[in-house]
Amino acid sequence: VSVLGGSVDAARPAIGLERLSLNQATVKYLGLADAVELCVRHDIPAIGLWRDRMAEVGLSSAVALVERAGLHVSSLCRGGFFTAADAEGRAAAYADNVAAVREAAALGADALVLVCGGLVPGSRDLGLARRMVADAIGELVPVAQRLGVRLGIEALHPMFCADRCVIASLGEAVDLALSFPAEVGVVVDTYHVWWDARLAAEVARAAGRVVSYQVCDWVLPLPADVLLGRGHLGDGVIDFGLISAAVRAAGYRGYVEVEIFNEDVWSAPADQTAAVVRERFAAVMGGAVA
Amino acid sequence: VSVLGGSVDAARPAIGLERLSLNQATVKYLGLADAVELCVRHDIPAIGLWRDRMAEVGLSSAVALVERAGLHVSSLCRGGFFTAADAEGRAAAYADNVAAVREAAALGADALVLVCGGLVPGSRDLGLARRMVADAIGELVPVAQRLGVRLGIEALHPMFCADRCVIASLGEAVDLALSFPAEVGVVVDTYHVWWDARLAAEVARAAGRVVSYQVCDWVLPLPADVLLGRGHLGDGVIDFGLISAAVRAAGYRGYVEVEIFNEDVWSAPADQTAAVVRERFAAVMGGAVA
Repeated sequence: VSVLGGSVDAARPAIGLERLSLNQATVKYLGLADAVELCVRHDIPAIGLWRDRMAEVGLSSAVALVERAGLHVSSLCRGGFFTAADAEGRAAAYADNVAAVREAAALGADALVLVCGGLVPGSRDLGLARRMVADAIGELVPVAQRLGVRLGIEALHPMFCADRCVIASLGEAVDLALSFPAEVGVVVDTYHVWWDARLAAEVARAAGRVVSYQVCDWVLPLPADVLLGRGHLGDGVIDFGLISAAVRAAGYRGYVEVEIFNEDVWSAPADQTAAVVRERFAAVMGGAVA
Repeated sequence: VSVLGGSVDAARPAIGLERLSLNQATVKYLGLADAVELCVRHDIPAIGLWRDRMAEVGLSSAVALVERAGLHVSSLCRGGFFTAADAEGRAAAYADNVAAVREAAALGADALVLVCGGLVPGSRDLGLARRMVADAIGELVPVAQRLGVRLGIEALHPMFCADRCVIASLGEAVDLALSFPAEVGVVVDTYHVWWDARLAAEVARAAGRVVSYQVCDWVLPLPADVLLGRGHLGDGVIDFGLISAAVRAAGYRGYVEVEIFNEDVWSAPADQTAAVVRERFAAVMGGAVA
């Protein structure tokens, strides 16, 4: 048995393919209709949608496409980017986020993923940016409650703190979520949080508030564009069994989205990517790592 | 006043040039003798040494060089890399770290900086790697005590967790340091920890245990090699006043080392680099950001 080996045990319950969701970003170059057909062809029961691809076909067509295909929408990506330098920018962010909540409601998405935004342009004040994020989520909560949408605060990896998301650890996301009603939860994305020594404790603290679980692997070396350093499950160093067990113990029973930003994955034929996603999900999330 | 502006106030005490130290890595292409002369020429009172450059001249010559120049050695970089796959590798790491402690003692360095090592080769087990680091530091403590050397556990940025340092947040480093006698402390390096919402609390918890304070800026975009993404003070997004105030409140009164890994900085003439280091230190650490 290699040190990389794993096995199904009580502490690491297997996750079956019936809980697999394909995040649309994994097949970045497909339009919405093609991504939906791909899921159907590969017996993938759920999809995580992106708003830019949805906008190309329009909301009502998107709703019709996923409904006709019998696909569940596990998440809509994404709202957020709340940290603007002026009132006009913040008002635009609010309007865009309200639109995103409406879309998530129409699609029956399990969660609207929020990537909260980096430092306020022209400022080094992390505290200011974080207060702005909290205020903006507070403004959005009544809208989410009214439309029955759960908001998922995603902690991004600290390497994106300056320019994409000042919520840079799961603990921060949990603190923020717990300061709001139950419609506000957290997204656990293995790529962003795997390194954290406090991970198990923070996931436990998020009990009942995990609204999305996204997986991909951390591969070395990092590529020139660190946004694209994600790999297929099993190609990197992440111990998925440990994180999955924590997410399950926190009560999460929803879909598990495979979301991979990687130029090589994007360049591969989509059917090949979908096949690898299924195969790796069965092997790694099922606990039977070779 | 721009939002990037700063000012000296009670909460952000200025740090004078008498506390500036030049970490040798900032002028990577200089040998030890040239780096020492550079510090003297630019009235920089202390230097952070690297073992590879010291080995080129030999320990006794290195000691003589810094003593003759009247330079203080603020740190020796570095020990660590404790996570080996077999007993032989761990024994080699121990021997190398004992040698590093001896060198730090001979140089009168304020601290031996420890970069603890990434995942154990062939393993995804973060817990295993972290236990191995704790055990290895435990073995080193009696040596450090005997020779009067303080060990500085450095938390590296989480983007280096897999391959360089599983101690990926300051809180972890503090937990580890506090489990040992007072000879074991932490290194606060702004580049690695600036993003952490718990930073102030963790620095406070490290009261009396901060043994080195290293500074450089976080610049965007990240370069292809993320090891080299550091910038001169003021070129990036880090709020040094806030971190310096926390480090001071934790009782640290030692030198402040400017340590910049950046290909452009390395390619610049060393005298130019030293002049910019001084100028920016005065402007940024003195509180008078332009």
